[in-house]
Amino acid sequence: MFQKNKTIMKKRNTACLLTGSLISLTGQVAGQEIQSQKPNFIIILCDDLGYGDIGCYGNPTISTPHIDRMAAEGLKMTQYYVGAAISTPSRSAYLTGRLPVRNGMYGDKNGVLFPDSKSGLGQDELTIAKILKQNGYSTGCVGKWHLGAFSPYLPTDHGFDFYFGIPYSNDMSPAQISDPYAKEHYPLTPLLLNNKKIEDEPDQGNLTRRYTEQAVEYIRKNAKKPFFLYFAHTFPHVPLYTNDRFRGSSKRGLYGDVVQEIDWSVGEIFKVLKEQKLDENTFVIFTSDNGPWLAKKEDGGSAGLLRDGKGTWYEGGFRVPAIFWMPKLLKAKDTEAVCTAMDLFPTFLEMAGISLPENVTLDGKSMLPFLTGKQEKIRDEVFYWWGSELMAVRKGPWKYYLKVIENQYTDSVNIFIPKTPLLYNLENDPSEKYNRAAGNEQIITELIQTAKTHLREMKMKNPVCDLR
Amino acid sequence: MFQKNKTIMKKRNTACLLTGSLISLTGQVAGQEIQSQKPNFIIILCDDLGYGDIGCYGNPTISTPHIDRMAAEGLKMTQYYVGAAISTPSRSAYLTGRLPVRNGMYGDKNGVLFPDSKSGLGQDELTIAKILKQNGYSTGCVGKWHLGAFSPYLPTDHGFDFYFGIPYSNDMSPAQISDPYAKEHYPLTPLLLNNKKIEDEPDQGNLTRRYTEQAVEYIRKNAKKPFFLYFAHTFPHVPLYTNDRFRGSSKRGLYGDVVQEIDWSVGEIFKVLKEQKLDENTFVIFTSDNGPWLAKKEDGGSAGLLRDGKGTWYEGGFRVPAIFWMPKLLKAKDTEAVCTAMDLFPTFLEMAGISLPENVTLDGKSMLPFLTGKQEKIRDEVFYWWGSELMAVRKGPWKYYLKVIENQYTDSVNIFIPKTPLLYNLENDPSEKYNRAAGNEQIITELIQTAKTHLREMKMKNPVCDLR
Repeated sequence: MFQKNKTIMKKRNTACLLTGSLISLTGQVAGQEIQSQKPNFIIILCDDLGYGDIGCYGNPTISTPHIDRMAAEGLKMTQYYVGAAISTPSRSAYLTGRLPVRNGMYGDKNGVLFPDSKSGLGQDELTIAKILKQNGYSTGCVGKWHLGAFSPYLPTDHGFDFYFGIPYSNDMSPAQISDPYAKEHYPLTPLLLNNKKIEDEPDQGNLTRRYTEQAVEYIRKNAKKPFFLYFAHTFPHVPLYTNDRFRGSSKRGLYGDVVQEIDWSVGEIFKVLKEQKLDENTFVIFTSDNGPWLAKKEDGGSAGLLRDGKGTWYEGGFRVPAIFWMPKLLKAKDTEAVCTAMDLFPTFLEMAGISLPENVTLDGKSMLPFLTGKQEKIRDEVFYWWGSELMAVRKGPWKYYLKVIENQYTDSVNIFIPKTPLLYNLENDPSEKYNRAAGNEQIITELIQTAKTHLREMKMKNPVCDLR
Repeated sequence: MFQKNKTIMKKRNTACLLTGSLISLTGQVAGQEIQSQKPNFIIILCDDLGYGDIGCYGNPTISTPHIDRMAAEGLKMTQYYVGAAISTPSRSAYLTGRLPVRNGMYGDKNGVLFPDSKSGLGQDELTIAKILKQNGYSTGCVGKWHLGAFSPYLPTDHGFDFYFGIPYSNDMSPAQISDPYAKEHYPLTPLLLNNKKIEDEPDQGNLTRRYTEQAVEYIRKNAKKPFFLYFAHTFPHVPLYTNDRFRGSSKRGLYGDVVQEIDWSVGEIFKVLKEQKLDENTFVIFTSDNGPWLAKKEDGGSAGLLRDGKGTWYEGGFRVPAIFWMPKLLKAKDTEAVCTAMDLFPTFLEMAGISLPENVTLDGKSMLPFLTGKQEKIRDEVFYWWGSELMAVRKGPWKYYLKVIENQYTDSVNIFIPKTPLLYNLENDPSEKYNRAAGNEQIITELIQTAKTHLREMKMKNPVCDLR
C-alpha cells in the first residue's frame, strides 16, 4: 500500500483505528445515541466529463488542483462504470442502484428525456434519497435532474427535501436547439427551487457558481444532522458556459474553463466541509454520468486512453473518473477494483446501518467490504446496455461484444452483430485495440453464458417510452 | 498554486525561504566553502515509456505509487518533449543539450546505433557529465547508453567516472534478433563495468534490480560530494523481462510488471536519498527517451490521449512523462510549461553555478527562471526532427506539419508532404484530431517562418552515418 505523504499516512493510521468502530457504529449497532454518527454522503456528478479530462487522470492542459488533491487523499478508481452511457438512464442507475432496464428509464434503443416527455422515474422506484430520508437523513439535490421535469417525477417527489436546479440538459432550451418543432414547442428552460419554477432561462454562465452556493449553503444548514447531497453539475455538457472569472482560465479552451470552474466548485465543497468540521464523517464521491461527447469535437471532452465516448459501449462511454474521499475510512491510493455507479446505493445503506430494502432487486453490490479491506474486489461483472439491448459483457479482465457500433464519433448510431467474435482484455489492453478472440473460445463461451444468465434473470420493466 | 497536502505545504514554505539562498549559492556566488552546497542531479530515464503508462498520467492498470508520490511532491510536466522520437538521437540530446542534427547523432532518416556500428557520440561533443566533472562533480552512469559501444564513445569517454550497464538496446543480442546477418555477426550482449566487459548476455530479468543496486551504491559512495547520476533503464523497451518478484504483479501484463519494477526502483532511489540525507539538495528527474513502441502491441506502452508513438513526430512520439522533484526548490503542482530534454543541460549548469560553455551552441534553455517563479514559461518553440529532416514545428499552442507519415502503428515509415496544410492547436486538442488550418493562414505563415529561421540558423554536423 502506497502512502502518498506523511499527512495521509497519519490519516491512514487513524483510519485503521476508526474503521472498525465506524462499521460497528453503523453496520451492527442501532440506537438513538449514534444517529449523529451516521456518515454524510455527497455525490458530485459531472455531465459528460470523460476519463481523460482531469489532471490526475492524465489531462495535460486542464488544471484541476482541487480534484487532484481529493484523489491524492482518497481512492482514485480506475475501473468505475456507469449504468448507461447517456444521461437519463445513467442518472436513474445512480439513484436507484438498478440498471435502467430494471427501473424503466430506457427506450427502444437508448436516449434521454426531453422537455416534452410525458413521464419520468416511476414512483414505484425507490431512490437512495428516499430511503435515507426515511432513516433520518436530510436529502438535498442541486443541479441537473433529468429524471422527469414535473410532478410526480421531480427530486422532491423522489425523496429529496430540497432541490435547486434545471431539471434536464442545458441544450434543450428553444434558444439552444435548432430543430423547428422543438424551437416552437419546448418551454423556456426552467430553474426550479424545490418543485416551483423561480426563473426562465437562467444565465448559464452563472449556473455552476449558483449551484455551488446552494450546495455550500445546504451543507451549512444541515451540518448538525446526517445528510445526503446529490450535486449534479449541468456542465461540461455542451453548450459550454462559464463566467468572466473562468473564461480563458484554461489552455484547453472553453471546455477546460468549464471544467476548471467545476474544480473550483469542488474546492468550495471541501472548504465548507472543513469549516463545519464535517471532513471526518463525510463520504465524498466525484464522478461523471457518462463519457465525453466526442461529436462536439473541441467542445467535447476526452476519454484519455480509452476507446470512444458517450453513447457507445466502448470503454470511453461507460468508464469514467471516480474519486472516493473519506480519509477516516479510505486508504489513499489508486485502485483497479471494478465497480459501478449502482454499487453506491447499497454501499451508502451499509455505511449508514440501514438494511437493504426488501422486494427490490438491486444491480449494485456494497463496496464496504472492499473499502474496509475485508474483500479484495467489489465485483467481477459489468453489463453494457444500450436501451433495451445488452451490447457487451465484462467478466474479470475480459470484455465480449454481443453487438457493435458503426459511425463512432458521430451522433448517428448503427448497431450490428459483429461478423467475427470480439474479445478484449481490458486490463492488458485498456484501449481495446487487440482482439483476443482467437484461441480464447473457452473464455468467450463463459462470457456468453454470463450474458445469458444475466438476461434470463433480468426482469425488465416496461420502458417509460419517452426516452429518445 | 495548489498545495497537495499539508506536508507539501510545509515543504513549500521552506522552499520559499530557501529558494533565494539556493540561487545565490549556486548562481551568483562562487567559492570553495559552498562547493558542498551544489545540488546533486539524478536523471531516471526510461526506455520507450509512453505518456499514458504511469498512474499519475492516467494509466488504469499499471500501479506506480513511488512515481506518483514523486509527482505529488514535485512538478508534473505535461508538455515535455524529447529531442528525437527514438533512442540514440534522443539520448544524445539529453546529454549534450543539443539537437541530434547539431551533435551528429542522426542518420539520413532516423535510426539508432547497432552492435556493428563503427562510431558513436564524437569527442568534440561536450556532455553534461564532462562539464559537471570539470567542476568538481562525481558523475555516474548506470544502464543503457546507446551512444557508442566501444572507446572513445563509452560513458567513461564522455565524462562519467563510473559506468555499469549494457551499452545499447536489449533487443540487439544475437539471441533476441531474427535477422540472419545480425544473428551471425552481432556479439553477445556485453554488460560493462566502466569500460570493461564483465559479462556476456546477462540475465535480463535481473537487470533492473542490478542497475538499481548499482545506482543506490553509487549514491551512497558519493553522498559527501556533489554528484550527477544518469540512470538509464533498459526497460520497458521490448523484449520485456522482469524477475519473479514482479512477474504477474500488474494487471497490465508483462509490460505493467516491468514498469512496476521500475517504480520499485524509483522508490529505492528515494529511500537512499533519505537515508543519506540528500533529499533536500538533490534534483531528481523521472522521464523517458521517447514515446511507446506501438508496433509491439500489448508489449508496447501507451501514449494516453496523445496521438501515435515512438518513431513518429505526432505528440505520442515526442511528448513523454516528466516529473521534476526537489521540494526545496520546486512547488508541487502540475505544469503545462512547454520544455524539452535539452533544457536540462543549461538548467543543471545554472543550478550548479557553472557558466555555459563558450563556442557551443545549445538548443536547450535554462528552466531555472521558470522553476524559481521569475518567468512564466520556459520556451515557445519545439522542433520535431526525423533524422536529417525537420518534420513539424510547434510555436505556442500551434503545431504545423511540414511532412507527415504513413503506416502508423508499424515500423515501416513512409514520409510525404501533406497535400493540404495541417495545423493543430495542441493545448485545445492534445490528441491532434482537428485540423485548424482553414482560416488560420496567418498562423501557418508564422510557423513556416519559425521553421525557416530554425533551418537557416541550424549548423548541421555531419551525421555519424551508422544510425539506421
